[in-house]
Amino acid sequence: MGLKKQVLEQLRGLLSGSRVLHCKEDLVSYSFDGTAALKQLPGCVVFTRTVDEIAEVLRLANRLRIPVVTRGSGTGLSGGSVPVPDCIVLCLVKMTSILEVDRNNLTLLTEPGATTLAVAKAAEKAGLFYPPDPGSMKISTIGGNVAENSGGLRGLKYGVTRNYVMGLEVVLPSGEPMWLGNKCVKDVAGFSLKDLFVGSEGTLGVISKILLRLIPPPAAKRTMMATFDTMEGAASVVSAIIAAKIVPCTLEFLDRTTVHCVEEYARIGLPLDCEAMLLMETDGHAAVVEEEAVQMERICREGGCKEVRVARNQAEALRLAGARRTAFSALARRAPTTILEDATVPRSELAAMIGFVAEVAQRYGLKIGTFGHMGDGNLHPTFLTDERDQEEMERVERAFREIFDQAVKLGGTITGEHGVGLAKKSFLPAFAGETQMKVMRELRRALDPQGILNPGKMFE
Amino acid sequence: MGLKKQVLEQLRGLLSGSRVLHCKEDLVSYSFDGTAALKQLPGCVVFTRTVDEIAEVLRLANRLRIPVVTRGSGTGLSGGSVPVPDCIVLCLVKMTSILEVDRNNLTLLTEPGATTLAVAKAAEKAGLFYPPDPGSMKISTIGGNVAENSGGLRGLKYGVTRNYVMGLEVVLPSGEPMWLGNKCVKDVAGFSLKDLFVGSEGTLGVISKILLRLIPPPAAKRTMMATFDTMEGAASVVSAIIAAKIVPCTLEFLDRTTVHCVEEYARIGLPLDCEAMLLMETDGHAAVVEEEAVQMERICREGGCKEVRVARNQAEALRLAGARRTAFSALARRAPTTILEDATVPRSELAAMIGFVAEVAQRYGLKIGTFGHMGDGNLHPTFLTDERDQEEMERVERAFREIFDQAVKLGGTITGEHGVGLAKKSFLPAFAGETQMKVMRELRRALDPQGILNPGKMFE
Repeated sequence: MGLKKQVLEQLRGLLSGSRVLHCKEDLVSYSFDGTAALKQLPGCVVFTRTVDEIAEVLRLANRLRIPVVTRGSGTGLSGGSVPVPDCIVLCLVKMTSILEVDRNNLTLLTEPGATTLAVAKAAEKAGLFYPPDPGSMKISTIGGNVAENSGGLRGLKYGVTRNYVMGLEVVLPSGEPMWLGNKCVKDVAGFSLKDLFVGSEGTLGVISKILLRLIPPPAAKRTMMATFDTMEGAASVVSAIIAAKIVPCTLEFLDRTTVHCVEEYARIGLPLDCEAMLLMETDGHAAVVEEEAVQMERICREGGCKEVRVARNQAEALRLAGARRTAFSALARRAPTTILEDATVPRSELAAMIGFVAEVAQRYGLKIGTFGHMGDGNLHPTFLTDERDQEEMERVERAFREIFDQAVKLGGTITGEHGVGLAKKSFLPAFAGETQMKVMRELRRALDPQGILNPGKMFE
Repeated sequence: MGLKKQVLEQLRGLLSGSRVLHCKEDLVSYSFDGTAALKQLPGCVVFTRTVDEIAEVLRLANRLRIPVVTRGSGTGLSGGSVPVPDCIVLCLVKMTSILEVDRNNLTLLTEPGATTLAVAKAAEKAGLFYPPDPGSMKISTIGGNVAENSGGLRGLKYGVTRNYVMGLEVVLPSGEPMWLGNKCVKDVAGFSLKDLFVGSEGTLGVISKILLRLIPPPAAKRTMMATFDTMEGAASVVSAIIAAKIVPCTLEFLDRTTVHCVEEYARIGLPLDCEAMLLMETDGHAAVVEEEAVQMERICREGGCKEVRVARNQAEALRLAGARRTAFSALARRAPTTILEDATVPRSELAAMIGFVAEVAQRYGLKIGTFGHMGDGNLHPTFLTDERDQEEMERVERAFREIFDQAVKLGGTITGEHGVGLAKKSFLPAFAGETQMKVMRELRRALDPQGILNPGKMFE
């Protein structure tokens, strides 16, 4: 099969030849993303440099009904940028310009291929702050963040990517560009189409420009760590912190397995004699941070923690924060295949959910490490497995089904920040229900009548 | 014409008789909302008490293709709840129950007919805070707030209604109910349909339940007032405050006309010898508030204000804040018809926009008072006119057209917080552009194929 030679020639006519990849060895790197066990060679990969080029590629694809799969750095964890057979991979990583930082209106305008880190740094350079910090922010693109509505460690206090998107330029599957939103703090003229595109995982249009909201940076920060004999103990301390009307900027937990893996990997000097560890940061005005840090330390002690450690300096703070940042890599060293999930529940149900995950893992004889955003109820149960072991993979699949069912039963969701993509699409109908699925399909059909954009993603 | 007798009988069968109004004298109160110069008698008014009743009414209307206009307290300022001829007005004011306040997850679940004030008070009773505060919050319903994505005085720091909606139950025009969202801080499973419904002005479905996010309340607040010889002076002080990385919870301005009207009406003791007045509040931790208040006072003085007054106590603070809250009522006393608009621009363009509004008013020989949210760029030019004076109304109309054109030219929007409804629908196409209009129409058609819900609103 493969793409017809004629199509490739047309693409080479639209873009310069070097921006169309077609040899198998070139395509291999674009056949997967950050999601384990999902691979598919595309028909070709194209790199656009302008919105007009995106429009041209889409017009061609739409005319010939060729599927288009959009892609940034390919760090996604739900298979959202895994190709479909014979598709055009539309790769946006060459569109990296940060076009404007507007200090008066606290906004930043960027192309979609800039990395999240580049955006954060440009904000910082202007004395401002872009809070969303997905785990892969060093290489993930901001376009991918918007398409997936990426979260991160600061969700509870600062919100997620959606909360910072003020405007978008999107190109519809027909090739028509459309600008949505503006620099106004308030705007209610018409439907909030921008919010429909944020998190639509590339199924409605291609994001070609992004206007982000920035905020003044916090003046101070304190980092601390506490260990507990039980996960319930950690969870009740989290509840007590929230009940004390403190909203920490990070409130992360690691289970025993994750703590041990991290320590073995990063040699941070973490205490190993615990069932649960909390990593907490409060930021803001120096006086408030100081006061909150004291309160949080007291709540940890009163909540029966084994140990609580407040970072005395920047270096120690970075080391502690690093423990959480390296969790995934540390776990990944332990097994040939690491499947990282993000079942999410209301904060009040987190301890129950963590207990359930541990019980399921044991019942199916699976190895699991769990960490995540305790303030958000956003759990990352991570199965340490081997995709070559068919029988074990089937158990993993069954365990996941139970975990997602339970998350939904507890009022939660099947994905807190990774997206549906290919990995979760079989779980979406039970979560969303028939009416919502029908509405989503109808909206998708209204915008992409031929279904050329990321087909087979999100919907079965 | 009027609704067929048979339809009324069917509605009386679905609801009890007393919840279907049909006599002309009963209908008159439902023939207008808060928008000047828009009136239309409906066919009937019905009051539902449950989601099932909403569904039944919609099924009937959909089957018989009878237009349905949804309505809360009718405080809207864009004609969004003004009836269309022979329609059913579906009035939700009897669904006032606040169903749950969840202190662990910081959420509140309510029916759509509860007033914004009742929601704010229920949050307060639980030691929590619901920030959005549209001007009409004492009587506006929370359902109306969600449908319009209402703003208020705290937008710059706390955001608008959308930022607090975590979940919605909506009934589609077909009568199918659909639950969207949940208590999770993070959820990326599927399109964010909830965000499509927020601000869709009742054109996509009827909101039957609302899950709101609450936050811990600020511990302290300081209120201050400053006067200026020129609007530019006030605007440059606002810029300096933002540049100092202070985000006040309110940052309101009143022009000379508004200050004089307010003083005449409310006898607050405002200084009258100024061209512009700023009303500012900072809230949060006591130490931060104290520091920010001192900084803001200094910035006002350095910015050449005529006078700056920091409220010494709660009573004085309420009096100053009241000045802004009464602005609309105070202006309304001056003329038979008051047309309140909300052209909005990026904050950096606010002084230019205010100057333009004054110039246009003068050029058309119109009386105008302007106030609004200076931190948001959300302007409320208010024409003091008389709807019986056809010739003057035509000048008002022409003046508005110039004002909206200019707002769009400056990167702003035709409505910051009042919505499109009937009042702005002729301005929407030029603002949104052809592609966006087409997409909005297609989405509307996908959800309401027969176009029974609030027809003729938002779209021409």
